[in-house]
Amino acid sequence: MKRIEPRVLKGFRDFLPENQRRRIDLQKQLEKTFRSYGFVPIDTPVLEYTEVLLGKGGGDTDKQIYRFQDNGGRDVSMRFDLTVPFARYMAAHRSELYLPFRRYHIDKVWRGENTQRGRYREFAQCDFDIVGPDSGEADLEILLLMRDALASIGIENISIRVAHRGLFNRFLSRLGVEDKSVEILRLVDKVHKIGREELSTQLTELVDSEKASAIISYISPQETGLKKPASSSENFSVIDMLEESAGGQDEDSSRLRYLFEQLEASGNGAAFRIDPSITRGLDYYTGVVFETFLEDLPSLGSVCSGGRYNDLAGLYTKESLPGVGSSIGLDRLIAGMEELGISGSKTAVCEVLILNFSPSLSGAYHRLARALRNAGISCEIFPEAKKLGAQFQYAEKKGIPYALIMGEEEHKRGTVNLKNITTRENEDDLTPSDAAERLRRYLSHP
Amino acid sequence: MKRIEPRVLKGFRDFLPENQRRRIDLQKQLEKTFRSYGFVPIDTPVLEYTEVLLGKGGGDTDKQIYRFQDNGGRDVSMRFDLTVPFARYMAAHRSELYLPFRRYHIDKVWRGENTQRGRYREFAQCDFDIVGPDSGEADLEILLLMRDALASIGIENISIRVAHRGLFNRFLSRLGVEDKSVEILRLVDKVHKIGREELSTQLTELVDSEKASAIISYISPQETGLKKPASSSENFSVIDMLEESAGGQDEDSSRLRYLFEQLEASGNGAAFRIDPSITRGLDYYTGVVFETFLEDLPSLGSVCSGGRYNDLAGLYTKESLPGVGSSIGLDRLIAGMEELGISGSKTAVCEVLILNFSPSLSGAYHRLARALRNAGISCEIFPEAKKLGAQFQYAEKKGIPYALIMGEEEHKRGTVNLKNITTRENEDDLTPSDAAERLRRYLSHP
Repeated sequence: MKRIEPRVLKGFRDFLPENQRRRIDLQKQLEKTFRSYGFVPIDTPVLEYTEVLLGKGGGDTDKQIYRFQDNGGRDVSMRFDLTVPFARYMAAHRSELYLPFRRYHIDKVWRGENTQRGRYREFAQCDFDIVGPDSGEADLEILLLMRDALASIGIENISIRVAHRGLFNRFLSRLGVEDKSVEILRLVDKVHKIGREELSTQLTELVDSEKASAIISYISPQETGLKKPASSSENFSVIDMLEESAGGQDEDSSRLRYLFEQLEASGNGAAFRIDPSITRGLDYYTGVVFETFLEDLPSLGSVCSGGRYNDLAGLYTKESLPGVGSSIGLDRLIAGMEELGISGSKTAVCEVLILNFSPSLSGAYHRLARALRNAGISCEIFPEAKKLGAQFQYAEKKGIPYALIMGEEEHKRGTVNLKNITTRENEDDLTPSDAAERLRRYLSHP
Repeated sequence: MKRIEPRVLKGFRDFLPENQRRRIDLQKQLEKTFRSYGFVPIDTPVLEYTEVLLGKGGGDTDKQIYRFQDNGGRDVSMRFDLTVPFARYMAAHRSELYLPFRRYHIDKVWRGENTQRGRYREFAQCDFDIVGPDSGEADLEILLLMRDALASIGIENISIRVAHRGLFNRFLSRLGVEDKSVEILRLVDKVHKIGREELSTQLTELVDSEKASAIISYISPQETGLKKPASSSENFSVIDMLEESAGGQDEDSSRLRYLFEQLEASGNGAAFRIDPSITRGLDYYTGVVFETFLEDLPSLGSVCSGGRYNDLAGLYTKESLPGVGSSIGLDRLIAGMEELGISGSKTAVCEVLILNFSPSLSGAYHRLARALRNAGISCEIFPEAKKLGAQFQYAEKKGIPYALIMGEEEHKRGTVNLKNITTRENEDDLTPSDAAERLRRYLSHP
């Protein structure tokens, strides 16, 4: 028989149990935090009409999309983010939903990207948005939730960098280059990758050298390198400078100032700083924009980014739906956590192995297992009566810390022996409930 | 501007928050049960080489597969179940895994099926398997886990029907029709849909009428209608009859007898019964096979089915990997639960709304919110200072049971007012920690 090589596609991955468990537990913890803020989950299909995902034209993104004709001749595509399907969802279900609508969505997306730079073609995103109000309170909440969500999975040492697109555009307009705003914002977005010198060169090609240097000094009113957050007074003096460059106070600068005042008032100023070099590449942001860097690993890039948009679902509905949202790049974040040795909770895959002496004792083993599970202890029964050495070896490989021993003799007496697999210590002739009680204590179950 | 209709593809679905939350919570509960049995999660890509999923030939299933050429010219397909990717996974990672290997996998699969009978083209599966031993103990464990997993989500009144493919084949061979075994098993698999009379007609076309009636009487040694499980003695007498029809005792009949003895011994006999009309359509089962029916809604069909296979990954590796596994049809199960009014836990989406009197109080609101969240209470702040009527209306729509009220006055005094949104009762001038304490009590938090 000709066998098939069990390979996976380039840019796709299998997850071994240890990794997958960490991913699931991370997602669960994030979910718990989102729910504690009143965010609700939604789900949308992986496949959609291409027209729905890309608009009538299709356009540039095309090459990165998994797009094909289904068996019914429909032009369909796999989703490449969670934002476009959310926009379509809001338009489709507007009458069934209430505003303000807070949603989270954690799931996979697909992009046929170049895999050379360690990028994957299948990866998980974690989005959360508040749709409805265009208010500083909503912006503030997303910023605080970013901080709390990351803290809940053990990531405390971060810097969330905030800027305002509207303010930047007002500055560009004052400089007389508002017609090149999209290109300029995209160029500035790359400054952390290409460096300030290269940015200056490219800006000079786009506008003149005087204006290029004005832009450079706007985005770096002080050193905006990836250092510890500025003190709160520094944030306010930067806002003053930006406001002045943009021609004085207005709604946008007031919004920024409001955000930093309330971050202070809520006792959360330290993780946040103004950084006018943050622009986000995407066109649809219109207000505050933000990115999050790990202080201990800034080279990783932003692990949680987003901003305010004034019209989420304009492609599908005439109702204007402003909102603010953010997205955690789960795969990048997990890579960063591994590099920093932040592993998340490290509980045993399974806590107890019940050794198998004879198939005829299966019923009794399952009674014992049930008693343990009811006490909150995970346990498994070795599923055939192999030599005990092989059974112990299995427990060690899987990382199971305890074994329970019940042969014919013990079964008759109604007792079990408890073995610590690491230390090899035994405690013999325990009643099952006594064994369960000790295990709960050893495993520090509540 | 020409707008795009926000439609979804036929056979695909959006999930509204209430439904999606129920789905997530159901999955979490199942996961908890699987983990309590020592099962570990894995993940595989949604897209695979078509050759890997379908084998060299492709074959019949082709029409139901979402198959296309990716931008690199590769012939790829979306997974149509979780078993084939698992087989590929075991072959690819054999050296990194230990046997016996217990895995679970809950995720979506895609099939371009006819949507007329309420079938979906995107749906969730929930698989669990023990790979390694060909033992009665492993079969037993899967059967008990099926029962426990369903019980953990509130489904207690079930009948798990068990048969043995090997025994049936031995009977067919004794009848001299072993060459038609595949067709016969597939026909018998349909008996609950087509009825016994139609089955008899179709069998008679395949074999002669005498043999057809022998088959009919093999699969119905007594009335096997969808009634309460037989008493344990009935199960054993059916095993005796089947054994006799198949030509006497052998490994297969002993395995069946062993299973029912141990189900009794573990105190779990009641939910299980022998039903020789269960065959499962799929070719790869070789040993026990089983299906699960809701006693209160048998017409739903099986909600959890599986069996033993003697070679999981033969397409990819020469190592023989026997196993036993089962799969919960989550979407069908959820539909059944809705019909029966088994809704799962019904907790509020969010427990407390903090009313917004002024943007200038945002920092204070977030301090209050943090105190509640730290006490395990989910809460949200209305994200703009709208009229109070609108804020209360929102709380009612979203089903939030309590509101906290803190205007400028209360803020100065350091107090809050607590309002029960359903009864409209107020408790005024509470300290924040007193309010949190009362909320924990009212919401019965542990």
